[in-house]
Amino acid sequence: MKKLKVGVIGVGRLGYAHACNIATRVPGMELVAICDGNIARAKEVAEELGAKNVYSAPEDLCNDPEVEAVCIFTNTASHVDMIRIAMEAGKHVLCEKPLAETVEKCKEAEAIIEAHPDQVFMLGFMRRFDHSYQVAKKKIENGDIGDIVLVRCYSQDPRSIIEGTLEYAPRSGGQFIDMSIHDIDLIRWLTGSEPRKLWAIGGCYEFPQYKEWDDGDNVSCLIQMENDVMAYFFAGRTAAHGSAVETEILGTKGMLRIGSIPADSLVQVFSENGVCQECYQDFITRWKDAYIKEMEVFCEYVAKGAKEANATPNVYDGTKSTNIAYKCKESFIKNELITL
Amino acid sequence: MKKLKVGVIGVGRLGYAHACNIATRVPGMELVAICDGNIARAKEVAEELGAKNVYSAPEDLCNDPEVEAVCIFTNTASHVDMIRIAMEAGKHVLCEKPLAETVEKCKEAEAIIEAHPDQVFMLGFMRRFDHSYQVAKKKIENGDIGDIVLVRCYSQDPRSIIEGTLEYAPRSGGQFIDMSIHDIDLIRWLTGSEPRKLWAIGGCYEFPQYKEWDDGDNVSCLIQMENDVMAYFFAGRTAAHGSAVETEILGTKGMLRIGSIPADSLVQVFSENGVCQECYQDFITRWKDAYIKEMEVFCEYVAKGAKEANATPNVYDGTKSTNIAYKCKESFIKNELITL
Amino acid sequence: MKKLKVGVIGVGRLGYAHACNIATRVPGMELVAICDGNIARAKEVAEELGAKNVYSAPEDLCNDPEVEAVCIFTNTASHVDMIRIAMEAGKHVLCEKPLAETVEKCKEAEAIIEAHPDQVFMLGFMRRFDHSYQVAKKKIENGDIGDIVLVRCYSQDPRSIIEGTLEYAPRSGGQFIDMSIHDIDLIRWLTGSEPRKLWAIGGCYEFPQYKEWDDGDNVSCLIQMENDVMAYFFAGRTAAHGSAVETEILGTKGMLRIGSIPADSLVQVFSENGVCQECYQDFITRWKDAYIKEMEVFCEYVAKGAKEANATPNVYDGTKSTNIAYKCKESFIKNELITL
Amino acid sequence: MKKLKVGVIGVGRLGYAHACNIATRVPGMELVAICDGNIARAKEVAEELGAKNVYSAPEDLCNDPEVEAVCIFTNTASHVDMIRIAMEAGKHVLCEKPLAETVEKCKEAEAIIEAHPDQVFMLGFMRRFDHSYQVAKKKIENGDIGDIVLVRCYSQDPRSIIEGTLEYAPRSGGQFIDMSIHDIDLIRWLTGSEPRKLWAIGGCYEFPQYKEWDDGDNVSCLIQMENDVMAYFFAGRTAAHGSAVETEILGTKGMLRIGSIPADSLVQVFSENGVCQECYQDFITRWKDAYIKEMEVFCEYVAKGAKEANATPNVYDGTKSTNIAYKCKESFIKNELITL
Repeated sequence: MKKLKVGVIGVGRLGYAHACNIATRVPGMELVAICDGNIARAKEVAEELGAKNVYSAPEDLCNDPEVEAVCIFTNTASHVDMIRIAMEAGKHVLCEKPLAETVEKCKEAEAIIEAHPDQVFMLGFMRRFDHSYQVAKKKIENGDIGDIVLVRCYSQDPRSIIEGTLEYAPRSGGQFIDMSIHDIDLIRWLTGSEPRKLWAIGGCYEFPQYKEWDDGDNVSCLIQMENDVMAYFFAGRTAAHGSAVETEILGTKGMLRIGSIPADSLVQVFSENGVCQECYQDFITRWKDAYIKEMEVFCEYVAKGAKEANATPNVYDGTKSTNIAYKCKESFIKNELITL
Repeated sequence: MKKLKVGVIGVGRLGYAHACNIATRVPGMELVAICDGNIARAKEVAEELGAKNVYSAPEDLCNDPEVEAVCIFTNTASHVDMIRIAMEAGKHVLCEKPLAETVEKCKEAEAIIEAHPDQVFMLGFMRRFDHSYQVAKKKIENGDIGDIVLVRCYSQDPRSIIEGTLEYAPRSGGQFIDMSIHDIDLIRWLTGSEPRKLWAIGGCYEFPQYKEWDDGDNVSCLIQMENDVMAYFFAGRTAAHGSAVETEILGTKGMLRIGSIPADSLVQVFSENGVCQECYQDFITRWKDAYIKEMEVFCEYVAKGAKEANATPNVYDGTKSTNIAYKCKESFIKNELITL
Repeated sequence: MKKLKVGVIGVGRLGYAHACNIATRVPGMELVAICDGNIARAKEVAEELGAKNVYSAPEDLCNDPEVEAVCIFTNTASHVDMIRIAMEAGKHVLCEKPLAETVEKCKEAEAIIEAHPDQVFMLGFMRRFDHSYQVAKKKIENGDIGDIVLVRCYSQDPRSIIEGTLEYAPRSGGQFIDMSIHDIDLIRWLTGSEPRKLWAIGGCYEFPQYKEWDDGDNVSCLIQMENDVMAYFFAGRTAAHGSAVETEILGTKGMLRIGSIPADSLVQVFSENGVCQECYQDFITRWKDAYIKEMEVFCEYVAKGAKEANATPNVYDGTKSTNIAYKCKESFIKNELITL
Repeated sequence: MKKLKVGVIGVGRLGYAHACNIATRVPGMELVAICDGNIARAKEVAEELGAKNVYSAPEDLCNDPEVEAVCIFTNTASHVDMIRIAMEAGKHVLCEKPLAETVEKCKEAEAIIEAHPDQVFMLGFMRRFDHSYQVAKKKIENGDIGDIVLVRCYSQDPRSIIEGTLEYAPRSGGQFIDMSIHDIDLIRWLTGSEPRKLWAIGGCYEFPQYKEWDDGDNVSCLIQMENDVMAYFFAGRTAAHGSAVETEILGTKGMLRIGSIPADSLVQVFSENGVCQECYQDFITRWKDAYIKEMEVFCEYVAKGAKEANATPNVYDGTKSTNIAYKCKESFIKNELITL
């Protein structure tokens, strides 16, 4: 079994989780190199996971001849630079979402990737690879729910981590760019259509500091898709019950709900509180298997070859979702209906 | 125990259900008279339920000296006329929703009712009196979920009754006026606020005939309330699983969901389909106890006296919800954001 | 509509609830007389519910010529005496469960009832009349779950009322006679068979005082039915989540579970505890509609006439369930397998 | 990171699944050798999973100096022989459940393992390592449910695989030895006690052929533990909804239920059948993560050293559960209460 030799750039919290998957849970991958600005951390992770080569400069990792594919888990602002370096070094690339901080930067990424048609590029919208979402997608394609009428998406961070959320807020790009972009991607993926019009609202219901960044602590958006499907998403930062992502696809013949109760286990607790299902507190735990599946799919794309594979989510998914997220933010700030 | 003597106008499907409640399940009421244009049906119901007097003309029922309170279950177009006749005859009045077919007619009703300040008037938004809604309301008032951020309301008619739905469609006023008005009332009741802006969309996803009536088979609306709470409602006519009304109140400290699984009983069925909960197929069954509670509350209002009781839902609730429903319809037709 | 004129003996907590139902929620009944040793309480209830006649002696109520049917809600020890008095006075009788405190007394009741074949006698195993149980029964009869393999029954009193439970314990007859008798009746009703062998165990897991009464605070029993169906019941006094009655019927082709989550409303609470469903705290609330339905069925039996109606649950159901409960107790005390 | 070098004996359906885990999902293990009587299959798997050495004789694998630990996934009848060969070759051993087909054989295994105190031996009761069971165990140890009163265990094979089940039945040892042994282990593990008395019943509710093997298609057993805890288990072969394992721990202060709805994903399906949760159809899918965790724990034991680690489930767990399973079978055949 030939293994894809992978170099990882960025081993912060999520990058580290990805590196562990690559090293130990994705049969088709071998972790050969790690790069992080924090070289001590890079060394530590490399040692733990058995990666041979350690770098502090992304260029060096990308020029490592052993590395066949580069996985980018750095901050959003650096994504396009990392993509350029890796693509120009001839590597296949998997990049965490969001693609970039602006639509212009996304377009840059498009040009880079188009210039290297033989290298696979894949964007990390991991929800698409979650077992429950795969089950739902299959049912939809099978016609089980008829024609799609409405897609509703909720993404909620647990209140328990609000301090970290607040700290990260100024450079996150805001709820629409950072969190809702997942739901925007799901809406596009599930409906096969693009927004025609949208209106986003919300506010600072508890944390006034979000106003500084033209953001809210809870926001939502109604979208009319070009194929007339309705889409509604909500994003919140203060969920009492945990890390909650719910997606509903309502069709003319049935309805699917994914994650309405984001149960952390199959244990029901019967207590003074009634009958309770405890929930995920952490998005990495929630999407653990989806992150692995994403890597496995990336391997398959590389094995097939870039042209044949036509990997998705692709760079255009990145540009489009970013563009929509910015339109949401514009609508939210102006409190106006936006036509795309 | 003194019983309130009630006359009922209109014993169609819902009127008959109400009449049964009044006659046999509301301890504080006595059914003394029935009026229906179909006099044969009126007589039949009167006999079955032990009502002494039967009329075909509403004026006659309203002038029956035994009747203390009149309950109006006729078609919407006649509501205001019925209210006038009953109020002018000095009776207390409970009228089914919606108040009237136009805002102008609602205003007429306001004038009539204001002219009779000693008579109780109550509008039949029964959902407010459902046990689950009462439980939720109490939790909200108790601060259990913090400040309200979002109210989401779904109302779905079962697909199994689509033929009846289609037949009734031309004179129903459409989804917003006929069905969503319940959700509009709930949103006003739960948030204690009025809409500032709204945008309604939807379409004919399966039944193109709704276009004729400027309506859709599935519609939804995003509302920004004056107090910045977000509200979103959806109304559909083709629910596979049954008669489904779901209401969610998302707050800064917790969330309540009412009726997400509109289970018809406490039976879980384990079969080839998995583990299933069968659902209500019929709105009268779903709201059975709420309809009774509504009558009991009406009795209490009458006992207290109109001024003291300050009965709700009142005529202004009727006007406001009708006005909002029309604004939704306008937004839906123009596909524009409407400012109220 | 002719109403059945009912006299009620015993207006303690449950008797009062029944009296309210008879007076105000059962269309076919009229409450005409109340008898209670506590005459002041009898008068109070009679006034509240509009019952004309009040008695302190059961004989007087039974000899009241207006009374057509007598409902017995006194303590178990007096049931057979009450049945005798009422039957001999020519009345129809509905008696709360359990039929009597001993099998001998049950046999006495049989003789009395057999001597009055034209009067309806019905025993108050109300669970049979609950909507969910009716739904389940219909599915079983319809063959939906194939042949019955196992019936599992749980009955739990909420821990929150343990003080009252303890106080009542010395004269309750114990868990098997007082509480499990409901499950014994369900097992007989659902399987259509009688026990062949049984083994009951349990103990005092928290409240050693139950030892005094040869009882446990939590007990259970495995039963082999004559038709080889397996049955298992559990009864506990310390349920944290509420008043919980769960019944499962496992068949060769499917399984039904009733009341696994004894949800008090359709509200789901999303909080730090996860996603919770609050539960019934009170058996009278849980079985509210079943108690009404029971009365309606009793009315139907009377209308049909005793012989034609062949009312169930009947006196033999009472004797048999009492006998089984005593065998359970015997098995529990001796810790031996009992053959019936 | 040093990896434990593992040789696998037996790559049938479950053995193959284990081998995949060892090769690709357990970071601390390296699959170096495979042995199977079907040498062609052994070679195929070895090639797929990158195992260097292939054998048809267990002795040869056990004498492979590269192999540090041997995992035994052969048929039950051969387990003790395999354990002997591997232990005598100085290897650590993980053996699938059940330990052996008779108690005598289990005792043999005990002697072998006691003779090699420096080698780790672990028995594969994987349920103990499932996330949900770990969550439950922690809550119990934390005192969340007070003292344990009752443990209820259901194990059901899906009806959809009945043909394979029937084919395997003659050499499976029967429901108690083959399937219920998992629940027997759970009961011992959860209660920390051993059975005092038990009574097992059941029958052939649909498949009379089980009578030939002194077995039933659906069986159950009530157990009184030495510490007075009640335990009840059920095992069935005809579950309509899927591969269902449910475990309930009822305590004096609360109750935990694991797997009541063995949901295969977080998707709720709203359809004509109501609101449904589809279920696992396959036990390997259900316990996927538990099988991996089991291997990880085995690695930790080896790392610690046999004496220090005191690995569990151990050989005595195997003997005791086998002994209990035989007592259940004896009780079932004789239809008598058995005292242990």
